[in-house]
Amino acid sequence: MTIDRTVNTMTATLAGAALLSRRAATATSSTIRDLLELAARGDVISLAGGLPCPEAFPTDAVRRATSTALDAGSLQYGATRGEAGCRAALAGWSDVATDADGVVITTGSQQGLDLLARCLVDPGDAVVVSDPDYLGALQVLRGAEARLVAVATNHEGLCTDDLAALLAGGLRTKLVYVVVNFANPTTATMTPARRAHLVELAERYGFIVVEDDPYRELWFEGPPAEAIGVGSELVVRLRSTSKTIAPGLRLGWMTGPAWLLGAVERAKQTTDLHTSTLSQGVVTALAAQDGWLAPHLDRVRSLYRVRRDALLDALGTVFGPELDVVRPGGGMFLWIDLPGVDSAALLPRALDAGVAYVPGAAFAVDTPRPGSVRLSYATASPDELHLAAQRLGEVVTDAWDAQWAGPAARR
Amino acid sequence: MTIDRTVNTMTATLAGAALLSRRAATATSSTIRDLLELAARGDVISLAGGLPCPEAFPTDAVRRATSTALDAGSLQYGATRGEAGCRAALAGWSDVATDADGVVITTGSQQGLDLLARCLVDPGDAVVVSDPDYLGALQVLRGAEARLVAVATNHEGLCTDDLAALLAGGLRTKLVYVVVNFANPTTATMTPARRAHLVELAERYGFIVVEDDPYRELWFEGPPAEAIGVGSELVVRLRSTSKTIAPGLRLGWMTGPAWLLGAVERAKQTTDLHTSTLSQGVVTALAAQDGWLAPHLDRVRSLYRVRRDALLDALGTVFGPELDVVRPGGGMFLWIDLPGVDSAALLPRALDAGVAYVPGAAFAVDTPRPGSVRLSYATASPDELHLAAQRLGEVVTDAWDAQWAGPAARR
Repeated sequence: MTIDRTVNTMTATLAGAALLSRRAATATSSTIRDLLELAARGDVISLAGGLPCPEAFPTDAVRRATSTALDAGSLQYGATRGEAGCRAALAGWSDVATDADGVVITTGSQQGLDLLARCLVDPGDAVVVSDPDYLGALQVLRGAEARLVAVATNHEGLCTDDLAALLAGGLRTKLVYVVVNFANPTTATMTPARRAHLVELAERYGFIVVEDDPYRELWFEGPPAEAIGVGSELVVRLRSTSKTIAPGLRLGWMTGPAWLLGAVERAKQTTDLHTSTLSQGVVTALAAQDGWLAPHLDRVRSLYRVRRDALLDALGTVFGPELDVVRPGGGMFLWIDLPGVDSAALLPRALDAGVAYVPGAAFAVDTPRPGSVRLSYATASPDELHLAAQRLGEVVTDAWDAQWAGPAARR
Repeated sequence: MTIDRTVNTMTATLAGAALLSRRAATATSSTIRDLLELAARGDVISLAGGLPCPEAFPTDAVRRATSTALDAGSLQYGATRGEAGCRAALAGWSDVATDADGVVITTGSQQGLDLLARCLVDPGDAVVVSDPDYLGALQVLRGAEARLVAVATNHEGLCTDDLAALLAGGLRTKLVYVVVNFANPTTATMTPARRAHLVELAERYGFIVVEDDPYRELWFEGPPAEAIGVGSELVVRLRSTSKTIAPGLRLGWMTGPAWLLGAVERAKQTTDLHTSTLSQGVVTALAAQDGWLAPHLDRVRSLYRVRRDALLDALGTVFGPELDVVRPGGGMFLWIDLPGVDSAALLPRALDAGVAYVPGAAFAVDTPRPGSVRLSYATASPDELHLAAQRLGEVVTDAWDAQWAGPAARR
């Protein structure tokens, strides 16, 4: 290589970033993902990630299912919509009436959401989300250059009266995104009345409801209410096997109106051709084992219920009864509020003390709550959860002490 | 549900298509994929698809590798860029000097191309492709609303002198896409001189070369020339395990400049979080078996070499020595030209006669060659290939006869 050519190459490399598309030039990495790298230090107990605990994985059943799948030839290219047998199995696991033709298999429900954004959102389109909301959804919608319209959420889920007021005031939206059960990060489950109200609004104003429901099966006290998608042609449901079988399979599915599933299928064709045939074969073989799923899910629910209770107990001991937390009826998270604390600013000290969490501000759309914190009880053991709560308590108490002592200490 | 509500729902459903994004409203399904559905009729021998033959799949090795992967815990969420062990293995399989940090794992190389389009192409950007070119690439680039600039290709690959003339004439492009070895559909392999010329042009004009190379290992007479990507910071290489292990794993990888891999990683995060951990575990375990890959690839190459020869022989017998075909040095396809025939118009008669192919016009960008046909020898057995060639010969001979007899017959 001549010097001229080397110089050319260097100049070209420096200019490389100028070649990026508009969306790539503005894309940022997930705060949570970057944080998880810090939290991977051996001495830190991470309540930050949403990783299922490996004890919940049906590893031996998957091993047998893989062998069945390979016997059935699960190594070939397949249909973009998914293998017919796997779609039939997932139709059976759906909680809306459908059949194999009504299912599109996706590479995790994250891909389902990405494909919906491609199919429905043009740059500048208004899309309604909750504030706060699932970061992976916000990233997809921001990447699609949607204009995010934040609607408040509380312990009954998305505040549909607020949405109704916006719509009555002239808001036009193609898409309302909602995690209906044990939402991430708020843990709220939408009430039946609000579900019905949301469908009414969709029918009146002609928008699509994207009903993301990855935690549905992880209920502790009783199963959640009927899906929004039952009986409406304007609801598309995103489902996942990540929390019921294993996230490493990257297998989700979508049910919804035929015209939209058709568009999603065409978009998926160019995106990854189809989802792993091996993963599909594993799910098909597991579904074919009569009576396998129910006891497996019972076991998974018990496991997470014990951990939820362990973390709630430990936080109660540390912070006392005033702790601002809603006892979640399922899922993987607690959503707490620490008054007078900036949880993002406190995070480095928490990591030093050996505990990781996600500052609630990471999930904010318009209105960050500085004291909010998302804690996952899914990954750590009950003993670790107790230790993590103690460490968190020390860090927060120090912060409170410093705050009250602040003006004096600074002198 | 009230009648009012039913009517509302019906109206909303009819209006559904109006909700589609600009790109979804204009997306069309792949002609090849639609055709494959017809070709799946039991009495049709399909030379249409690009399906590897199942005899080439290392099913037992994959079975053992799966067990190893499950022992190692391959069911959890993973890093977006890919598992470190798998990236290290793929770095070792790369034909450019790199390490685990220089690899991003993708859900098939199709996803690699889709992510590159997201990261580099804004609507209206000029992107250079060959005419004809791989349909899956054309679909991705059209979906990204690129302005496709077609450059001719011949038996030496992309005509880089033509590209140089366009660039000298003022063409500004961010991206040149090229399948360098045993291209689909033309079967051409780019000469070393043209590879060097393309890199020179990239350095002079500051564009990225996307070097798609899924067929590299499927050589019959000898391995292909050094990759374009060796020594240049402006080349990103797309690789795949679909033709060497199995497409059902959906596992490809990308090597290239760090700034671009970083952008691709951020885009992938929102797209499917990461590629199947199980598939990654399988590839990692296969790569860890010293001495497994080389004899496996020898076996796969022999299998396809026999089929290439069988189809060439059979076509030679049917059409005689004037058959316009280049003997491919590798890959899965023959690219033939039938003078005086419109291969797209002839397809229904071919399907009736029990043989399927892809009309060359499906791969055209600007200039369809009506007589061109892509035939895959990968899926059918040598006996079936002989039978398929006979059927094709009868249909084409009938068409030629009808053409010469045409004016008389119509009277």
